[in-house]
Order: sequence, then C-alpha cells, then structure tokens
Amino acid sequence: MTGNVLGERFVVMSFGESHGACVGALIDGCPAGLPISVEDIQRQLDLRRPGQSLVTTQRRERDEVEILTGVFNGYTTGAPILMITRNKDVDSTSYLKLRDTPRPSHADFFAHVKYGGFNDWRGGGRFSGRVTVTYTMAGALALKLLNVYLGIDVIAYTKQIGELKVTRELDIEEIKNNRYSNEVRCPDPQLAEQMRDLVIKTRGKGDSLGGIVECIVINVPLGLGEPVFSSLDGDIAKAVFAIPAVRGVEFGAGFSAATMLGSEHNDPLGYIDGKILPVTNKAGGIVGGLSTGANIVLRVAFKPPASIAKPQRTLNTSTMREEDVVVTGRHDPTVVPRAVPVVESIVAIVLADHAIRGGFIPPVIKVR
Amino acid sequence: MTGNVLGERFVVMSFGESHGACVGALIDGCPAGLPISVEDIQRQLDLRRPGQSLVTTQRRERDEVEILTGVFNGYTTGAPILMITRNKDVDSTSYLKLRDTPRPSHADFFAHVKYGGFNDWRGGGRFSGRVTVTYTMAGALALKLLNVYLGIDVIAYTKQIGELKVTRELDIEEIKNNRYSNEVRCPDPQLAEQMRDLVIKTRGKGDSLGGIVECIVINVPLGLGEPVFSSLDGDIAKAVFAIPAVRGVEFGAGFSAATMLGSEHNDPLGYIDGKILPVTNKAGGIVGGLSTGANIVLRVAFKPPASIAKPQRTLNTSTMREEDVVVTGRHDPTVVPRAVPVVESIVAIVLADHAIRGGFIPPVIKVR
Amino acid sequence: MTGNVLGERFVVMSFGESHGACVGALIDGCPAGLPISVEDIQRQLDLRRPGQSLVTTQRRERDEVEILTGVFNGYTTGAPILMITRNKDVDSTSYLKLRDTPRPSHADFFAHVKYGGFNDWRGGGRFSGRVTVTYTMAGALALKLLNVYLGIDVIAYTKQIGELKVTRELDIEEIKNNRYSNEVRCPDPQLAEQMRDLVIKTRGKGDSLGGIVECIVINVPLGLGEPVFSSLDGDIAKAVFAIPAVRGVEFGAGFSAATMLGSEHNDPLGYIDGKILPVTNKAGGIVGGLSTGANIVLRVAFKPPASIAKPQRTLNTSTMREEDVVVTGRHDPTVVPRAVPVVESIVAIVLADHAIRGGFIPPVIKVR
Amino acid sequence: MTGNVLGERFVVMSFGESHGACVGALIDGCPAGLPISVEDIQRQLDLRRPGQSLVTTQRRERDEVEILTGVFNGYTTGAPILMITRNKDVDSTSYLKLRDTPRPSHADFFAHVKYGGFNDWRGGGRFSGRVTVTYTMAGALALKLLNVYLGIDVIAYTKQIGELKVTRELDIEEIKNNRYSNEVRCPDPQLAEQMRDLVIKTRGKGDSLGGIVECIVINVPLGLGEPVFSSLDGDIAKAVFAIPAVRGVEFGAGFSAATMLGSEHNDPLGYIDGKILPVTNKAGGIVGGLSTGANIVLRVAFKPPASIAKPQRTLNTSTMREEDVVVTGRHDPTVVPRAVPVVESIVAIVLADHAIRGGFIPPVIKVR
Repeated sequence: MTGNVLGERFVVMSFGESHGACVGALIDGCPAGLPISVEDIQRQLDLRRPGQSLVTTQRRERDEVEILTGVFNGYTTGAPILMITRNKDVDSTSYLKLRDTPRPSHADFFAHVKYGGFNDWRGGGRFSGRVTVTYTMAGALALKLLNVYLGIDVIAYTKQIGELKVTRELDIEEIKNNRYSNEVRCPDPQLAEQMRDLVIKTRGKGDSLGGIVECIVINVPLGLGEPVFSSLDGDIAKAVFAIPAVRGVEFGAGFSAATMLGSEHNDPLGYIDGKILPVTNKAGGIVGGLSTGANIVLRVAFKPPASIAKPQRTLNTSTMREEDVVVTGRHDPTVVPRAVPVVESIVAIVLADHAIRGGFIPPVIKVR
Repeated sequence: MTGNVLGERFVVMSFGESHGACVGALIDGCPAGLPISVEDIQRQLDLRRPGQSLVTTQRRERDEVEILTGVFNGYTTGAPILMITRNKDVDSTSYLKLRDTPRPSHADFFAHVKYGGFNDWRGGGRFSGRVTVTYTMAGALALKLLNVYLGIDVIAYTKQIGELKVTRELDIEEIKNNRYSNEVRCPDPQLAEQMRDLVIKTRGKGDSLGGIVECIVINVPLGLGEPVFSSLDGDIAKAVFAIPAVRGVEFGAGFSAATMLGSEHNDPLGYIDGKILPVTNKAGGIVGGLSTGANIVLRVAFKPPASIAKPQRTLNTSTMREEDVVVTGRHDPTVVPRAVPVVESIVAIVLADHAIRGGFIPPVIKVR
Repeated sequence: MTGNVLGERFVVMSFGESHGACVGALIDGCPAGLPISVEDIQRQLDLRRPGQSLVTTQRRERDEVEILTGVFNGYTTGAPILMITRNKDVDSTSYLKLRDTPRPSHADFFAHVKYGGFNDWRGGGRFSGRVTVTYTMAGALALKLLNVYLGIDVIAYTKQIGELKVTRELDIEEIKNNRYSNEVRCPDPQLAEQMRDLVIKTRGKGDSLGGIVECIVINVPLGLGEPVFSSLDGDIAKAVFAIPAVRGVEFGAGFSAATMLGSEHNDPLGYIDGKILPVTNKAGGIVGGLSTGANIVLRVAFKPPASIAKPQRTLNTSTMREEDVVVTGRHDPTVVPRAVPVVESIVAIVLADHAIRGGFIPPVIKVR
Repeated sequence: MTGNVLGERFVVMSFGESHGACVGALIDGCPAGLPISVEDIQRQLDLRRPGQSLVTTQRRERDEVEILTGVFNGYTTGAPILMITRNKDVDSTSYLKLRDTPRPSHADFFAHVKYGGFNDWRGGGRFSGRVTVTYTMAGALALKLLNVYLGIDVIAYTKQIGELKVTRELDIEEIKNNRYSNEVRCPDPQLAEQMRDLVIKTRGKGDSLGGIVECIVINVPLGLGEPVFSSLDGDIAKAVFAIPAVRGVEFGAGFSAATMLGSEHNDPLGYIDGKILPVTNKAGGIVGGLSTGANIVLRVAFKPPASIAKPQRTLNTSTMREEDVVVTGRHDPTVVPRAVPVVESIVAIVLADHAIRGGFIPPVIKVR
C-alpha cells in the first residue's frame, strides 16, 4: 500500500495540498448505519481551525466540510465517504522566495529532492500542518463511531508548552469538560493563562514553542490490537507521527519507566466493578500490544514550529552559499493547542480500525 | 493485512511460540541477488541469544537458524525466505500455575481473554520476548541488504539502565566498535561495569530494571519515507513497539524538544562534503517523515520486565480473590542488553522496506 | 485493505454513487513528473459517456472531470490525485418502486441485505455501471503513464455482441485505428453495422444483449507480475470483475486451450528483432504469471444487462408474493460498446501498478 | 503487499521451491478455536499427491504435512500457523540441460530474466505445479473452518479433459460422493473411464491434454464480497490464476452469457424454504460482486502441460540458434485431475477470507 493510506478495515486516505483547491479524506470501511451529519464533522474541525486567537496562525479558513459520498438519509451506507474542505485564504507569495533558501527544519528541501522538484511547494504542500484537516475530518467520523457504538471517548489536552507543565493530578472529568474552554487547551485555568502569555511573548520575539499533548481514551474494551506487528500502541504511534512536528510518543509511564523497578512498574490485576482490570495503570492501558480495559494514556512530544520570524542562517541551494532567511507568511507560534483535536482524531482513527478488525464493531450497526 | 505481517515491499511475517516447536520469519520481497549465508543471520542472532551471562535469563538456547527456502547457491532468489530456529530448552512447568494468577503487567491474562483461552500460554506463547528471535533473523537479512547495497549501518547501544545513563558525547566509531564488547552493550566501559553490577544486584533482590536503547543509522540516503501516513519515523515507531516492554520512542531531540525554542531546535542546511545536509541534527535525521541524509537517531524506552522473583499481589482469576504470586521460571532482569541487536534488526527491516519502496534498491541487485 | 481500493503501488480508490453528488477516483502512488491535463482524462471519459447513440442508455451526462489535487503546473506531484465527475442528469423516481420488487439479476436486493438497508439504492448506487466512470478516470491516468514512459498501448474492441462475432484475423493497427470509429466499437465496419442493427432491434423488443470485449496490450516489457498470488493474469482478472456484468475472463487461447494438445498449444521461443520472444502467442502474453514480452491478449465476457423493459416475474420482498416487474429508467441494451474504454482503463491500472512494483517505472519520471 | 501473500484477514503466504528443502504455507488470521489435526490437512493433500496412477507424474512424494506453529492442544490459537511439506523425491538432473533451451510455454526463461538468473530453476522452482501443495495445505484449513462454522462445502470435479466433456446434468450429491472415486476425478464413471484412456493414450504419444474443472460451493451465506474491487468473483478469479496452467475462469453462464438475451439470462428471485433466493442461477451465485445465497458455480480452463516428451523446436538462448528440445523428467500428461483438490483449496481460502471480512466468522469461534 502507498503512503497516504492508513488502516486496514477503517481505511483513511488523506489528500490535498495547503494551497491547492482543497484538502480532504476518503474513508473506506466505515460500517453502514452510523448516523452522521455535517455538524458531527464540523464540530471537531472547528476545534483545530486556525485564526481563532492570538496563539495560532492568522490564516483565516472557515474550514467548512462537504460530505460528497457515502452518506444517505443521514446514515453511512457502507460505501466510501468523501469529505473535502476547500482552501480559501491562500497566499503563496511568501513561499516563492523560500524555494532557494529552504526554511531550516522544514520539509521543503527534502520534499523537493524526493519528488524531483515536482511537488506542490506552495504553503508547504503536503508537508503543511494543513494536512491535519484531513485527519480531523476522518477522525470526527471515527470518534462518532466509537462513541455511538462502544461508548468510547478520546480526550486530549495540552499537558505542556515550553517549560510550563501540568504537574498536579487532573481528574478525567475535569479534563473532558475544560480542555476546550481556553485557547491553549489546557484544563487548568491558571496554567492556561500562563501558557497563553508565554506563547504571545515568544511570538513577539519571532520565536516558537514546543510542548506535549496527553491523550486519554476511556471505555476501551479489552483486546484491541493485533500483535506482534499491528500492536495497538505501535499503530497509534505510527499514526501520531503523521502529525507534523511530532518527535516522540510514549504510553503510560513512558520514558520514566526506564528508571523504575519492576516491582514499582507492575500493574497488578484487581476485580473492579465486576471487571478484571489492572489496579494501577503504568502500562497506559496497553500490554503486549493489546488494550487491557484500562484507560489508554499516551503523550505526544511536539517540537517548536520551524517557521519563525527571527532571521536564521541557511543555505541558498542555488548558490551553495549560506545566507539569512526570514520566514514570513502566517504561522503558528506553537502547534500544541491546535494539535489537541488532531491527536484525538488520529487516535480515534486507529481505534476504530482496530475495533472493526477485532470484531468489536460489526459491518452494519443498528443504533437505537 | 493481519497483525503478524510487517512491511509493504520487504515483508516480514513472524511466527512461532516461546515453547512450541520453533520460532521463525518468512520474508517476501527481498531482492534477488543478495549474497547471504547462515553465518550472516547467525551472527546477529548470537548477539541476542540468552544464557550468555549473568545479566540475562538462564534459558539456554543455541538458537541455530535454518534457512529453508528462497536462497540458492548462496544468493537470494527473489522467492520467500523461510528461516526458523527450533526451541530446545523448553520448560513449561512454571507457567502452568500462572494460568489462574496472571503475572502483573504481563500479557498472559489479556491474551487469554482475546483469544478465548485458545492461545498457547506456555512460556508466554506469542507474547514472550522469544518472538524477537524472529525479528532478529529477518533483521539480519535486512542489515545485509542495506549494508551491501547502500552502505547503511544500523548501530544501537545501551544508553541507560535504571538511573545509570550515558551522558558524555560518544563518537559514532566508538559506539560501533565497542557496543558489543561487554555484556550490557554499553560502549562506555566504566559505565558498563556499573550497569552490570546494578543488574546483578537488582536480580539478587528479585527485581528488574528498565532502560533506554539508542539507535543510530548512518549513510541513509535522503528521501526514504512515504508521507503522510507511512512516514519513516512513524513506520520505525510502529515496528519498535513490536518489541515487548517498549513504552516510548523518540527521534532526535525527542521529548526534550518540548522545551526548546524554534531558534534552538531548527537545523539549518549546509553544504558538507559536496552534499546539502542539515548542519545540526535535532530532527534525528527525519523531517516531514522523510530521511534528510543526516544520521537517523532514535531512542527506545524499555520498562522493567514484568516477571520478577519478588512476591507480588495479584488476582486469582478463578476465585476472584487477591493473592500473592511468585514468578519462577527463567527471566531477564532487564531486557535492555539483549534488546540492542533487536532494535537494530527491527529498524533495519523498516529501512529495507522503505529503501525498496522508494526505488533505492531495485528488485534484482548485482553485487560485485 | 477494504474493497474499494485497488493496487499496491499505483493505488486507485473508487467512490461515489450513481445518483449522488459525484463519482470519482483517488489515486495514490502515481509517480511525480508525469505531464497530465484534464484533456488526457476527458478523452477517455468521453469514450464511455452515455447518451451518445441509440445503442446506449439515454441518460445524458457530460461527465466533465475535475482534477482537484495532486497535479501542479501540469505535472503530477507524487501526491494523491483526486478526480471527480459530478452527476447531473439524475432521476431516481423509477428506482423507488423497485425497492420492493428487485430487478432480477441486479445487485439491488443483495446490496440491501448486505448493508442492512442503509445502502444508497438510487440508480443502483455503488452497483450501477456508473462506477465505471471512476475506473475510466484513473485508467486514463494509468494509460498516459504507461504510454509516456514505456510506450505501452492498451487496445480493446468489441469482439462479439450476441451471436455476431469477429471471426476473421484483425490486424493490430486496424483495431487501433478503427475501434472507436463506430458506435459499437467494432473495428470491422460491416460487422459493426450488423451489431448496431441487432442492438437497436433487441432494445425495441425490450430485451438486452451480452457480448465479448477483447483487449490487446502492446509493448509490454518482459517480467511484469509477482507470482504466485499477484500474478499478472490474476490481478488483471480480479480488476476486470469490478466491471458490472462481467461473467468470465480468459487469456490467449483461453477456454479453447482445454481441447488443445500440448504440442499444439506450446509457444516456442524465437529470436525476433533482437529480442527473445515467443514465436506464437497461445499464452496471451503471460506465462507463470509473468509478462513474456509478447502482446497481452485477453477476452472478457459480458452478460446481457439485467434491466430490460420486458415484464419479468420477480418476488415482492415485502409481501413474499411473486409479481411482474417492469424496469423503466434509462438503461443500456448492451454494455459492450461502452465497456471497451472501461476494459482498457482497468487493464491499464493493473499494468501501471505492476510496472511500478517491478521497477519498470521509477518514483519520479523525467519526460522530455 | 508482495506477491506471495493472499488475502486480507485470512492471509496465506506461500513459500518453497520444487526441488528445495520444502514447500509450505504460513497462515495468519485464522480464528482461534478451530479444531484442527494433521489428518484434516493430510486428507486434502493426499488428493493432490502425485505418483498415484498412470494419469499423473511418476514423481513419488508422500507429501506429509508438519504443523509447526499456531495449533495447541488440537485447536488453532489465533497465532500464525506454519505448515510445511518436505520435498523428498527430488531429481534435478533433467533440468540442468533445459537452462539453455527453455521448455516452450514454461516460465523457466521468463523467470530467469525477471530474477536476474538468481531464481532456483531446479524443477521449475517457484513456477512448478508443486507450489499447489502450499495452496492445498492452507486450503484444507480454510475448508475446515468454512465447514465447521458455516456448513459450507466446496466441491470441484473434472468437467472436461480434451474433447471429453460432461454434458448431462449432474446432481450435486452425485458429484460430492463420486468425484474422488476415480483417478480422473470425474463423477460420471463411464466418462471417467474414457478420460483415463485418453490421458494414457496421449501420454504414450508424448503429448499432453487440457481440460476444465468445475467448482460448486454450497451453503454460502448472502453477502460475501467487498465491491467494487474486492468482489467475490474477482478475488476468486485472482486466486485461481495462481494455479499454474490456468487460462480462463468463468462464473455461472460464463462465456455463454455473451449470446444470451437479458430475458433468458436473468435470475428472478423467489421464496424458497423460507429464504429469498434466485430461482435460477445463471449468475453462478454472485451478483454485483456479492454472494447471493445460491450455489457459487465456476469453471476453470486449464491448458495442456508445457512439458511433453515429444521433440519441440525452441531457441537455444546461448547460441541464439533454434534447436530441438526433448523434455525428460517426470510430468503430468494433464493437470486436471490433480487440480481438482487444488481448485477446491484455493476457492476455500478466498471464501474464508471474505467470511471473516464480512463478519460471518468471528475472531474466536466456539465449536460444540
């Protein structure tokens, strides 16, 4: 299979360029009978929409989804679902001059070489953060499917921006209810305020910030995952790396497990509310590549965006001389807040795929 | 595709159980014309073989590979290559009593539920670290292919065990030459000695240790990877999670990128030895899902093994009462040293697959 | 992978319903650098367009293709290519009454059961001949790729309609030049005239006709195909069955090989124009699943269309009583003439995929 | 995916060469809980075993299957199932001299070119009829699964050898009971006798015969198949072409549908034994790529084997001069009788895959 296709049974194909006619997703394998509306998709899409606040790019896109096929009378039909979002606020002028002086740490130059110079470089083309619109549309469908049929919720939030980090234990309800209540998508209101200030200050200096998104999935049945190679954690990790700027992913105790003893890290089983479940959750809900029934917990590390206003040294690939480049255009000072719904979406896509593969969701669903 | 199959054009299928007749790998898509011998495979396999020192399990397996198909007159033929390793030192008695009192944090119970009780539970079955033999065999083939045709080397080593961590900058030649010169696979001899002591001491206490393996790939051409979903980092991450006990993976600056500014993290391009390359390598050799031509650098976090001698509280899944379990049998006090060649192998498999997908290796190779 | 996806490296995803907003194709894996225009696609699409003559359905669709992504400055970029054709002349009224009295031999009822009643039944939905628009768009791209880079031509024509059959030997140039010079797409003008009369007469009786399309591919390099399961003949056969109304496919001597002796059927090798080639071609250009360098020759049998004006006995699936059904709506009296460009298209898709898989076409092409 | 892998959820990988150590199949995705024994596999394998009579090759292979992984305590575990059959009666001497004078119509030369001369040419290597052992082993597993869980039977028989053809209507019970009661696998005893004589006479003349195998599948539920590209007929056709010597495949009325009128060909629905089913079955049990609930009926055309004793003209590919070749070694005078169980097996593999894909068989089965 080729690179723009994800999944085995709930299959998402991403297409479209940042400054082309549209971006979109084609989904094959969504069970028939799922009630779905434009609003279901639009709601998630609105959460990642740019131009909403000072902490995001000023590119203004209304990002209105059109569902063109695969839905009939308000239900999925079992046929491929085509969703597109037209690009409207496109301005490619600032990219033209970047052709010879590639932005440091951006894919521009590497894509140019790989595709023999034929790639659509405008706005970064397929290497723009704008491709996450396509994940979000498909993810909104997956979220609906998981929620309606299995009661699963996928809940991400901003755990860290720069050095500012959520350190106190957050309640899952608190996260669920508050995560989208502020621009930075941090459920802790005080910290959110500080993060906002940090982002605005950093943008003012022509610089950018990294951070961490945590994602929690609740009500996952035991047994999702197809080890050894299509482990649930592996497939989530793979999908997460499709989001630009991701540099790492960890589950449960994650990298901190490296310094733990087995006796500290092990999660004993217990009998909780009539179910056998791990009593603690250092594993982050996945053991041996299988979901355990405990919440899935993962964290995704985002690097600071490459496009910064500050002058940077780079190579002029025509003259082979070093020179300064100043990236203009409209860019996010940090991708973390807008990545929150994207992480939710991409995780949902993987879970929907595995839920179907594992027989947890049948080919036709009947919803009351 | 099903869960025991990895890759698109260099395809590896893993099979076999810990205490069954054999473990093995079937590889389809290996180019014809690659010179390969049993020794090429055995060499890598010997590096992960158990029973070699005090820091590993005492299960004694000679792990002799047999190549049954796909190789003729010392060269690959283009047909599927079947490699098996017979299980010899098998003792399932200690596992029988674990059936009702599952080891905390081991997949035993979750596999039992998923497969309706039909899974081969002896020695952990498919969820044993023994499945990494299958990755290693296939990986040895991939390593040979990458090395012979593209000059690529995949070099992993123990970066951290417990709190003991390589902090000084290591030279790549130093790593390459020294990593297998001691039992813990750490290229720093002093630290290696301390790590060895820590492992033996921890095993003595009936406990186990986590750690971190770093993997560096040199001589990678620019342009491996098929974004957006089959990104090079994503596919490596997915494959790495097939190794039992992995809890996280990061590239380049990894999680530390979360606290960096864009101006600190960005890698400017330069003109080095006649090639356009990033001057620094915070990205870890992959940008936008594409290899940049710089070394690929990744780190894999391993949790401490679940099987420890210390008594642990767990649930008796028959009586639904809590009780103590003492895991006997032969287990690694830390998987990190033996994971080093396994990480190399699994990374090589992914790179071989992408090298073929990207046209860097043709269907038939002629080697001088 | 799911059912609406075809291919491994040149991947086509078909979507859209007969009476929905559009039908379309998304192609992933097309090499970068292929010059492509709307006209390249439209030309092939016009060949299958309905409403052009008395021998086809009277549904009038202009079938104008839109290329929305993946093409930039007149060249493919290596990114997914989205092509859609909007449905315009849609009239679903006649289908409503078919819901309880399914057309004999049409997929309506079986699709209804499979998709739990959620399928878009208007105009047959995904089971309409209209889905072949999607193959034709993708196929036009494949044809261009094969032609530009390898000089391959895919040439189909009407070999038989009802009892009227091309029996004399046709020259390949004759077929190439004349096949689209008449409505029935038969390169023999006299026979074409008779076929036309037969179709019109049969339609007048409220009945329909089957037939056979022959397809010849010239300039195929030796070695396309990936035995044993992805044999070139097998993959072509699979793809051909995606065309509604296909009942059989054969290569070279085909079913007549059943009555031949080995000494009659065998194709000896010879040295022709500096190339080693089969001297005869009973094999139809494929041996052991591999292209031989000789022309690929296949024939596809089409059943008569299910939708006929004549009253037919069927079951009322509500009352479980038999009753007569009269299918109104606009239907082809035979699909054969319009199937000619569709067979070319679908064969081209498979060849393009295998040409890429076999390394005959690289990821980036440079065309003078 | 690569060429030696078939299926999506019941995945079969074929490996091994005619004169190598073994041939075998690795099956991933077989549901856990299926009772399976060596005898279940051996029974089907014995039906295709060579050396049993005058109508087959005299190569004597006992073809004893070994099941090495994936089965535990008599049940499938959900893990990959490795089955191998060792090659014993191997004599490669006669193939050595064929290297320069390739057998007309055999894959030897084309494989040599494709694999750069690295292919294992002994006994035809991967292009020998011996690869059908691998389909038969995997097919026996599929047959058991289909039979035990869905009551499906797959029943093939010799319909035609040379000009000798079953013309009278055969009862399905008659076919089921008698097909393996004679060497030629024709359920009509008189015709079987004539066929046997014809084969022996033709072999005596140093020649070979083609023929047709018909395959009938009973008790198929409605709705198998994933249109448009993974249609049930398309996937069966593809798989059937993996059998060497196949030249065509047709379903139901097949090529004869080309001369039928719609009113003759259409199958009206009726209400039969409490089920809505087609009253006639010109469609051969598949409409729109979906099983209809009627019996699946297909016919497969086999060409006469290429290897005949009679001297044949061919090219010496070293000297580029024509010369005579006499194929010695041990070959079948017709593949039809031994193809009967192979066709059953390969059809069963496809049906098992689609039964799982369609949710007709769950990931874990409980059999009384």
